[in-house]
Amino acid sequence: LDYQHVQVPFEITLWIMLASLAKIGFHLYNKLPSVVPESCLLIFVGLIMGGIIYGLNDKSPPVMDSDIFFLYLLPPIVLDAGYFMPSRPFFENIGTILLYAVVGTIWNVFGIGFSLYGICQVKAFRLQDVSLLHNLLFGSLIAAVDPVAVLAVFEEIHVNEKLHILVFGESLLNDAVTVVLYKLFRSFCEMPAIKTVDVFAGVGKFFVVGLGGVLVGLTFGMTAAFTTRFTKDIRVIEPLFVFLYSYLSYLTAEMFHLSGIVAIIACAMGMKRYVEANISLKSHTTVKYFMKMWSSVSDTLIFIFLGVSTIGENHEWNWPYICFTVIFCLIWRALGVLVLTFFVNRFNVNTITSKDQFIIAYGGLRGAICFSLVFLLPDFHRKKLFIAATTVVILFTVFVQGMTIRPLVDLLAVKRQRESAPTVGEQIHIRFLDHLLAGIEDIAGHWGQYYWKDKLEYFNSKYLQKILLREYDQPKSSIVLLYEKLERKHAIELAEAGQLGHAASHPSLLCSGFLCSNNKTVVTDKKLVDTLNPDVLENIQEILARNLYRIRRTGPAYNRHTLPGETEPVERAKEILILRHKSL
Amino acid sequence: LDYQHVQVPFEITLWIMLASLAKIGFHLYNKLPSVVPESCLLIFVGLIMGGIIYGLNDKSPPVMDSDIFFLYLLPPIVLDAGYFMPSRPFFENIGTILLYAVVGTIWNVFGIGFSLYGICQVKAFRLQDVSLLHNLLFGSLIAAVDPVAVLAVFEEIHVNEKLHILVFGESLLNDAVTVVLYKLFRSFCEMPAIKTVDVFAGVGKFFVVGLGGVLVGLTFGMTAAFTTRFTKDIRVIEPLFVFLYSYLSYLTAEMFHLSGIVAIIACAMGMKRYVEANISLKSHTTVKYFMKMWSSVSDTLIFIFLGVSTIGENHEWNWPYICFTVIFCLIWRALGVLVLTFFVNRFNVNTITSKDQFIIAYGGLRGAICFSLVFLLPDFHRKKLFIAATTVVILFTVFVQGMTIRPLVDLLAVKRQRESAPTVGEQIHIRFLDHLLAGIEDIAGHWGQYYWKDKLEYFNSKYLQKILLREYDQPKSSIVLLYEKLERKHAIELAEAGQLGHAASHPSLLCSGFLCSNNKTVVTDKKLVDTLNPDVLENIQEILARNLYRIRRTGPAYNRHTLPGETEPVERAKEILILRHKSL
Repeated sequence: LDYQHVQVPFEITLWIMLASLAKIGFHLYNKLPSVVPESCLLIFVGLIMGGIIYGLNDKSPPVMDSDIFFLYLLPPIVLDAGYFMPSRPFFENIGTILLYAVVGTIWNVFGIGFSLYGICQVKAFRLQDVSLLHNLLFGSLIAAVDPVAVLAVFEEIHVNEKLHILVFGESLLNDAVTVVLYKLFRSFCEMPAIKTVDVFAGVGKFFVVGLGGVLVGLTFGMTAAFTTRFTKDIRVIEPLFVFLYSYLSYLTAEMFHLSGIVAIIACAMGMKRYVEANISLKSHTTVKYFMKMWSSVSDTLIFIFLGVSTIGENHEWNWPYICFTVIFCLIWRALGVLVLTFFVNRFNVNTITSKDQFIIAYGGLRGAICFSLVFLLPDFHRKKLFIAATTVVILFTVFVQGMTIRPLVDLLAVKRQRESAPTVGEQIHIRFLDHLLAGIEDIAGHWGQYYWKDKLEYFNSKYLQKILLREYDQPKSSIVLLYEKLERKHAIELAEAGQLGHAASHPSLLCSGFLCSNNKTVVTDKKLVDTLNPDVLENIQEILARNLYRIRRTGPAYNRHTLPGETEPVERAKEILILRHKSL
Repeated sequence: LDYQHVQVPFEITLWIMLASLAKIGFHLYNKLPSVVPESCLLIFVGLIMGGIIYGLNDKSPPVMDSDIFFLYLLPPIVLDAGYFMPSRPFFENIGTILLYAVVGTIWNVFGIGFSLYGICQVKAFRLQDVSLLHNLLFGSLIAAVDPVAVLAVFEEIHVNEKLHILVFGESLLNDAVTVVLYKLFRSFCEMPAIKTVDVFAGVGKFFVVGLGGVLVGLTFGMTAAFTTRFTKDIRVIEPLFVFLYSYLSYLTAEMFHLSGIVAIIACAMGMKRYVEANISLKSHTTVKYFMKMWSSVSDTLIFIFLGVSTIGENHEWNWPYICFTVIFCLIWRALGVLVLTFFVNRFNVNTITSKDQFIIAYGGLRGAICFSLVFLLPDFHRKKLFIAATTVVILFTVFVQGMTIRPLVDLLAVKRQRESAPTVGEQIHIRFLDHLLAGIEDIAGHWGQYYWKDKLEYFNSKYLQKILLREYDQPKSSIVLLYEKLERKHAIELAEAGQLGHAASHPSLLCSGFLCSNNKTVVTDKKLVDTLNPDVLENIQEILARNLYRIRRTGPAYNRHTLPGETEPVERAKEILILRHKSL
């Protein structure tokens, strides 16, 4: 037996296996996940595992390593979040999100930090040795809402899109603020004296860390899109580039002390549109599936490790400090949301209702990021107190808030997410209104979001698409793409039903949508009018040719570089010529 | 700048990126890969990279770590090979493959070892200090044909299926022999005296290592199939199990000093059938795609690293020894193939032609496994000579043989692989003949391969499927599955062409195939006759219901645990009831 040799991969595989099996286990009993959020169940599994390890070895079980968390577990989750981020609601509410993420987080950090310092002055609690700076440092790590925890809970309760994006967007973008404040206070703790210039440098850093992250992310995203232009002959490695470039953007940002989370989100959102147009349908399925799979496993591992790490002897249970931390976290968040929303509602037509405000405040869950940051603290005599307080705050928010938020959403009758995707007609009207509003804004001389969106779209179709897309001469409207997608889905379902022949009615129904969408394209782009008919004809010919060809041909077996069903267009054209020649 | 922190993942990502970009680069110029095999180009890139590193640092570039190779780079390639192994030709030629793999490899090891020992006796070469045991040890690592190198070359030249499976199967299964002989000679080198009992223990080990590997692999494969029975509610993590279980089988086999390659192949071949029936279509695409992607990247990295590791100062250039190694490798392999094929042809109707024999002998490429094994040798004063000889043999086989084998195949007019997949009619006839032959064998009292195959099939449908498949009460003939697959593919293509309505002719054509296959099933399983009609009706009803439902419903956005298009059957049934109620 040679366990030493295979230990590292073997144990990693076993942990992932445990996580996956735990997930299967929960879903076998359908009742369980509908009452208790999966994150709670996983922490519970972790607690049991930790207890077993503690009982067997009689020493604290291993704590989740901060490096492993930040370098390997967090990126997949953030990538998944960024790649599947609904961009429309995100950009429509970007102002509000940024306000919550930046001002809200700073408010929380200082609020929690100063009031905990006040608690430390009470002699009965024996906490006089915790300085203001240490309290602020603790505040900076406990204040930030955690994207992993928020996602885990909010994706199960299906609140309306705007509410979801407000909480979730805040949890993602506050990373820049958290990184800056945490590092600032940590370096202040180690400095003998703090100068005014250091404080100003800290403020300047906000912009560097946040905007730098965006810049790094966009650079890698555009490079990824550009690279996928050239993968036509080796479809198999297409999905790889999506993962490689986004991971590189995260690592590069971390290397330069920028916000890795912001970078990977900018990368994912930037490349998505172009990559999707360049890669094949199967590659796209693989990318989607693998992202979901990876983030799901990461998320499971994080919660299990959170549970495991809770067991052990690295805690100092000073209950007054811990209880006041929980209370202050709740109070300051509620106050912050109330005050900020007051300003937001004054400047917006679509106000945030008081119900929504309550859910935003209540949904401020803490999670593994706080946990990893507290372990990264430099050693000082009260570190164990901070660890204990962080653990309790996380468990409180995940268990109490996470389990009660669903009944509360039901009780308050918070507006839910709409169940169905928008119809083709709706999409056309939304698009139409966008153009209309952009025109009105232009005439009124008001440079609002529609104006900028229109300009960006123009820049995109004029320059970016030509560089980044493989077939840039045939830009397809998103509605046509949607139509194709619906058609394909419908066809698969019909095929599964084995009734392909009787399907004459459905396409004609959708066809009106297709025509509509073409008319729509005409409104915005007059050039298409003349070329429409030859284009359609050519398209049909091309597709006919491909079908005639493909049906009687399959790729060679077990070739590592190609998948079945990919044939050379040149070869194909030749064969078709031969066929036609024969038939004549 | 904090490079230290992200160094490990950053450098790994960069290496993978380099490998992927190199692949894209080759395929941009279509002419290049058709003349020079990709493996040669990659080694060449590696040589250049190694040269640059050597020039800049003035010290030998890093050598590929044997642990990294065996634990991380080799498994994906072998898994891909095993999962996509065409099982029919493999099992039809299993006897011949085993003969080549076991007897052939032993023949080569002793042939090369003894003749090199002979060379060492020539005083002019100054090699008298290399003992017989060291020569045999060297023979054991240089004799084995490398699956990675064979795959890389053979998948580009498309020889006929039988020839391919003979070379490729041998290269995979000889791992057990190589492992045993290599470890045996290595321990003999360190022993003061060798007893007869040790030699006999070595012979016994063959069976333990090989059969143990098969056992470990099958165990994990069956567990994987069993696990995927329960993943219906979380489709997202289905692909994960395929990878986790096969990797675990490899690691477990390595841990017990069994053959990891044999284990992972047994695991992949064992689980494939059941896993494919259990998991969803999208999961299946992901599994296929990711396996190809992973093995492609591994393979690229291996060849680049081979190139990089060649540059440096850890070689001892004793040219007589090196040249005779190359010559003996060629001669003994050619002799072995000739002798073994003589016996094979005496007992088989389907003889191996002399052209095929030549290609089998010529296709004995060496690769990264030899290279990793030679670095794993214990330190002794002639290790550098062995490293140099191994490097030269690998480069010679990959470059000279790899580049000339394609022209030779053309020149000799070796029978090529058939281009198209077998038609439905052919499949039916093959299946029919199988049953017929099984019956004839049974009557004749001859327990040949058809008899055993039939028994295995019976055992499978009677017991295994009931345990391992989710929907075991509806066993589908492989022909029906094929029909469904063809239908689905056809539907997608029609949808892409936007002509779903005009497709009435095609299904009726295939329908005859469908009926045939049903008739076929009737021949083998009389129970189906009575239940056929209600079954079909029920099926159609179920599918109709699903379609009616799905078209107007889309899943909620950004949920990490589900992908769009998966709906609850209970919910679905409810909706349909409501709909029907309304229409009445």
